[in-house]
Amino acid sequence: MESQDYDHVSFLIGLSLAISSSIFIGSSFIIKKIALMKMNTLGNTRPSAGGYSYLKQWIWWLGFLTMGIGEAANLVAYAFAPAALVTPLGALSVLVAAVLSAKFLNEKLNISGKIGCFLCILGSVIFVVHSPKHDEIQQFSELTTKLSDSIFLSYIFTILIMTLIVKVIFVPRFGNTSIIVYILICSAVGSLTVVFCKGVALGIKESINSDINNISSFIFWLLLIMSIICIMIQMNYLNKALDIFNTNIVTPVYYVMFTVLVIIASGILFREWEQMEMYDIVGCLCGFFILIVAVFTLNTFKEKSFTFDLRHRMSIQEENFFSADIFIFCT
Amino acid sequence: MESQDYDHVSFLIGLSLAISSSIFIGSSFIIKKIALMKMNTLGNTRPSAGGYSYLKQWIWWLGFLTMGIGEAANLVAYAFAPAALVTPLGALSVLVAAVLSAKFLNEKLNISGKIGCFLCILGSVIFVVHSPKHDEIQQFSELTTKLSDSIFLSYIFTILIMTLIVKVIFVPRFGNTSIIVYILICSAVGSLTVVFCKGVALGIKESINSDINNISSFIFWLLLIMSIICIMIQMNYLNKALDIFNTNIVTPVYYVMFTVLVIIASGILFREWEQMEMYDIVGCLCGFFILIVAVFTLNTFKEKSFTFDLRHRMSIQEENFFSADIFIFCT
Repeated sequence: MESQDYDHVSFLIGLSLAISSSIFIGSSFIIKKIALMKMNTLGNTRPSAGGYSYLKQWIWWLGFLTMGIGEAANLVAYAFAPAALVTPLGALSVLVAAVLSAKFLNEKLNISGKIGCFLCILGSVIFVVHSPKHDEIQQFSELTTKLSDSIFLSYIFTILIMTLIVKVIFVPRFGNTSIIVYILICSAVGSLTVVFCKGVALGIKESINSDINNISSFIFWLLLIMSIICIMIQMNYLNKALDIFNTNIVTPVYYVMFTVLVIIASGILFREWEQMEMYDIVGCLCGFFILIVAVFTLNTFKEKSFTFDLRHRMSIQEENFFSADIFIFCT
Repeated sequence: MESQDYDHVSFLIGLSLAISSSIFIGSSFIIKKIALMKMNTLGNTRPSAGGYSYLKQWIWWLGFLTMGIGEAANLVAYAFAPAALVTPLGALSVLVAAVLSAKFLNEKLNISGKIGCFLCILGSVIFVVHSPKHDEIQQFSELTTKLSDSIFLSYIFTILIMTLIVKVIFVPRFGNTSIIVYILICSAVGSLTVVFCKGVALGIKESINSDINNISSFIFWLLLIMSIICIMIQMNYLNKALDIFNTNIVTPVYYVMFTVLVIIASGILFREWEQMEMYDIVGCLCGFFILIVAVFTLNTFKEKSFTFDLRHRMSIQEENFFSADIFIFCT
């Protein structure tokens, strides 16, 4: 197969995985909410009051499984398509959740909600049409070489210093009043999560497809551990933000900051943008702005703060159990 | 100059003219509104009560001049760029009017209005990036040959028959209850206006640039007369629609129908779409849908039905005097 054909097939696989991941993740919110609603009508102790009866519900487990599949699809997508494509498409999970909650939970989607859904699709199409098509990195060894590139190391260093400064200076003063503080830490660390996860995904993909065994390499395990640490930090601060602020504000602000930082990080690491025409860069920017408007519209104008209420409730009160859920939404 | 360079320069001239035309037309609504407001504070008879004192206002004349320049720029734009690019960019005049009315008339632009403005810009950029770049027709003689093409003649015939049927059957029954009826006639005839105007503009452009004298040709005068007749029909039915329905509904519905029909008519005549990649067609569709959402958002969510109130008032009560104004908005 020629290199360009390979790129094309690889891109399509990554794109399909990213879209299906959003469908699974979006659906899982609704499935779990249905399970919780069913449980409440049965008169069981609510999870917020310490009840664990939802574990006996098969629908709840279905939701959990859906979430797991979505998370896995997302991780694998990073091995096939550029991070600058996979991350922004996370907006589709907000769309899926909105549409399904209107259908199955009878949460009325008003005209603004519909406009938000429509814009979400249009923005995604435009983004996909213009996004970087070539993943600059096909091999695990290439990635590890690039990771030790001085510019990328400076990026990691900057993120760590910035996170420390924000944590020490800004969190005590503005953490409870300004939404930016926690979300900034969360998004900055999240941009590293994506890069490390991409490394892990690429390592596994290569080990399966070729004779090279990355699983036994030190760097693979380092990336895996770094991924887990980053996910935990990210989760911790996202939960803090969700605890203090309304989910309807946290979701879009987080989407915007996280996506921008992932695009910056993967831009520094993979130089996806250097090969692109001005034409496509303008298109990508427009697509991304439309996605931002869509996510804001879906969250601001809807009559009920539909599915994300659920995520909020669950993530705060059962922090450890649902840790995976939040991460999924993040990546 | 090479053909491709010529195309490129021609495209840029047409694009600049289309954008400046929208700026002039958008501004003229505001300038005229300022004149009318000033006149009202001076205690003169309102135009709706038959007063003509606005003719003594230099600001009003400035507005009229601005409108004239905008109209001229729009007509010339059709000689340089594809109609499928020039017409959709008419959405920008709604944006300009919204921004200026917020600035000079203290009409507060709420969050939805701002989103509408932002989407309007994004949609226009995407549309321009993907729109047909090559005007298939450079010469007046080519255009006149194409006009007698059987498929285009069938289009004219279909439009005429449809207009007649709508006028005879639907106008008496649903004209006052369904917004579609008048707007359909108006948009259908408008799509012919654009084609004929493009012919006139091309004829004048060629007569100036080369030795060919189109002005003395029979077909040039036929196109001019047809343009004027179509404009008058279009104006007449737009005024009827504005008289019965709210401008906030008429504006977006008219924008959508008119633009779609112009794209169809110019697609049949100039085959602009045949040369385009699937990629660009998808981009154009997305850009156009975003423009529709933008025009709807700007018109539906705004707190006041800002500048178009003015157009409405003026156009209905001083139908003959302001006839030009409406036409401009249409093309």
